[in-house]
Amino acid sequence: MALVVQKYGGSSLADADKIKNVSERIARAKENGNRVVAVVSAMGDTTDELIELAGQVSDSPDLRELDVLLSTGELRSCALVALRLNSLGYPAISLSGAQAGIRTDSQYGMAKISSLEPQRIMDELDDGMIVVVAGFQGITPGMDTTTLGRGASDLTAIALAAGLGAVRCEVYTDVDGIYTADPRLVPKAAKLDEISFEEMLELASYGAKMNPRSIELGMVYDTPILVASSFSDVSGTLIHGDADMNKNVGEMRNRVSGIATDTNVAKITLQGVKDRPGIAASLFEPLADVGISVDVIVQNASVGGTTDLTFTVKRDDLNRASEVVQRVAEDLGSTGFVTALGLAKVSVVGTGMQDAPGYASTMFRTLADEGINIEMITTSEIRITCLVSEDAVGPASRALHTAFDLDVG
Amino acid sequence: MALVVQKYGGSSLADADKIKNVSERIARAKENGNRVVAVVSAMGDTTDELIELAGQVSDSPDLRELDVLLSTGELRSCALVALRLNSLGYPAISLSGAQAGIRTDSQYGMAKISSLEPQRIMDELDDGMIVVVAGFQGITPGMDTTTLGRGASDLTAIALAAGLGAVRCEVYTDVDGIYTADPRLVPKAAKLDEISFEEMLELASYGAKMNPRSIELGMVYDTPILVASSFSDVSGTLIHGDADMNKNVGEMRNRVSGIATDTNVAKITLQGVKDRPGIAASLFEPLADVGISVDVIVQNASVGGTTDLTFTVKRDDLNRASEVVQRVAEDLGSTGFVTALGLAKVSVVGTGMQDAPGYASTMFRTLADEGINIEMITTSEIRITCLVSEDAVGPASRALHTAFDLDVG
Repeated sequence: MALVVQKYGGSSLADADKIKNVSERIARAKENGNRVVAVVSAMGDTTDELIELAGQVSDSPDLRELDVLLSTGELRSCALVALRLNSLGYPAISLSGAQAGIRTDSQYGMAKISSLEPQRIMDELDDGMIVVVAGFQGITPGMDTTTLGRGASDLTAIALAAGLGAVRCEVYTDVDGIYTADPRLVPKAAKLDEISFEEMLELASYGAKMNPRSIELGMVYDTPILVASSFSDVSGTLIHGDADMNKNVGEMRNRVSGIATDTNVAKITLQGVKDRPGIAASLFEPLADVGISVDVIVQNASVGGTTDLTFTVKRDDLNRASEVVQRVAEDLGSTGFVTALGLAKVSVVGTGMQDAPGYASTMFRTLADEGINIEMITTSEIRITCLVSEDAVGPASRALHTAFDLDVG
Repeated sequence: MALVVQKYGGSSLADADKIKNVSERIARAKENGNRVVAVVSAMGDTTDELIELAGQVSDSPDLRELDVLLSTGELRSCALVALRLNSLGYPAISLSGAQAGIRTDSQYGMAKISSLEPQRIMDELDDGMIVVVAGFQGITPGMDTTTLGRGASDLTAIALAAGLGAVRCEVYTDVDGIYTADPRLVPKAAKLDEISFEEMLELASYGAKMNPRSIELGMVYDTPILVASSFSDVSGTLIHGDADMNKNVGEMRNRVSGIATDTNVAKITLQGVKDRPGIAASLFEPLADVGISVDVIVQNASVGGTTDLTFTVKRDDLNRASEVVQRVAEDLGSTGFVTALGLAKVSVVGTGMQDAPGYASTMFRTLADEGINIEMITTSEIRITCLVSEDAVGPASRALHTAFDLDVG
């Protein structure tokens, strides 16, 4: 029997009726002759509500205790789904991250999976059970509960799919699949039937609603991921390896697979930095130490031995990042720093870009024709990202979607 | 340093402000130079809400999964209290039942503690931490979560106090202590400064709001239990061993310590049962097998070789009990059975009763003078219980409270 891992997000589990719906979908996978492991998120906005509750009793919550608190959300939903499945006549058992063998390091709030010991899951599957696992959580060597970071129930699911040798990991959410652009911004956006891991990784890292670490894990273990809606029977998008992708390259009229947008952006510019070796390390190491990811980085050409260093961070990280920058600015000989909000990233992603010139110039020309100013630019082999004003993110996406021939309808 | 175990009930933890209040009380115990273990219940009505949620997805919830669901309530409150304590500058750590070493059997929903392995608690206390333990839960040998039955956070606290050699277990709730009668029924009820384990066990078993298994455990391990309010600094009631009690006997003008009332009662009468050895066992064994406690039992004098057998169960158990009785009635040669609601138990409890006659007759006379009919009677060495109409429970308690000279004010 094939093993299938399914994952259901919080919006698919927001109330008792939705839990019933999800349980029926899980039962159907069992009826279709599969061994089934279902990974569930917390119901609806539970995690946000718990964070708010923690904020009411503590200004800077202890991270270990916050993880204990947050982990209860997923425990509740996996128990409720197992209750429903049993009540429908499908023997099912809920397992916490610890019981499912998700071992992690002790970095509370953003723990990394160190190993998977899925013996309990295998035993339960052998007994004919549907196994419902609490996503987003694991356990340290000292038997303390950890969480894996926001959106990391996907990570639990894909890690289990890879570790258990599942034929695929099915990620069910409130959208039909992966689109060529955010349909709220680009009405002519189209659902993709398939996309490569590499492209999806770029889309996810630059704004698509999926955990980039999950995509990476699927890529490393070559575990195909199906993204589909838990509310419809539309076919979804299959994220899979290049091997399969290549056979379709001949048919692809277009080598740009999608436009990603991200408004969770803040910009920090450190002014008058002395232009000498090691300044970037002196700045970015302390930021990494406190867990802040730095994204687009631009260093201006040196004028008179000093330069400006500009970079972006997540908007949520701006305050913490500013504290770090304040601390190191003097050491760097900087004359000061400024921060800016109201920005957005617009990215064009496609595997084909690495073999064909002209994509960058098409992107810049398109934005220029729309009168959109580009503040910063960064690229990877299969992605070009421009930092633009937040107001411009809609017009920019629509224009690029048209320019790269992605429009449908 | 003395070790104190404190327990806080759900009404003391109902919201963020109450969690702050409880945390300050815990911190004060630490400031007073104690090693402190705090056991917490779920916030407010969480457990009832979770049971309702389970009912929405399942008509007869799987007991293992229900325990996973219910156990999250206590996990949340212990994390929140630990968050608050840390934020106040008191290093604190929350522990689940499993982490606290509460090992149980696998009887989900009403598991029994099989052993206590408190090494983790001791280690954390040695590190100077305040340890906040999730009440009401434990773990099976197979590492599955269990719950210990409604109101069993008291049990967790007293088991830990006994196992850790605490000087006392402090149970904080929304009342000032143990009263001579339910103050809602008897305005002249008085708070007791102290009471013996035996008396408290009878009061708790016959209606006072405390888990009888907890009292029993305190009695077995001779761990004094202080019952007090988390909302005031009134001194509370100390439940302790007879040894200490005896020294006050001389001062006690009254040997009745309190009146207990219980309206969670239903009556079942099995009619025309053949009067032969073994009928009681044939009836009560199947009831015990499904976990139904039978209370007052009366067998009428045999007339013509048949008899009526009447007993009481908790009102909540009536439907399940009726199913069992239905099944065994024919085997017992019974002509049928009837059930009745609308009843209540009124009990008079006091250690002194065992050495002095006349308590029973005073009780019966007092009820007769009030025109209250006694349906059934049962006694222990230190208790007399009468089954009366539910309407009579108020007048009966007030009259008995006066008759046994308990009135204050």
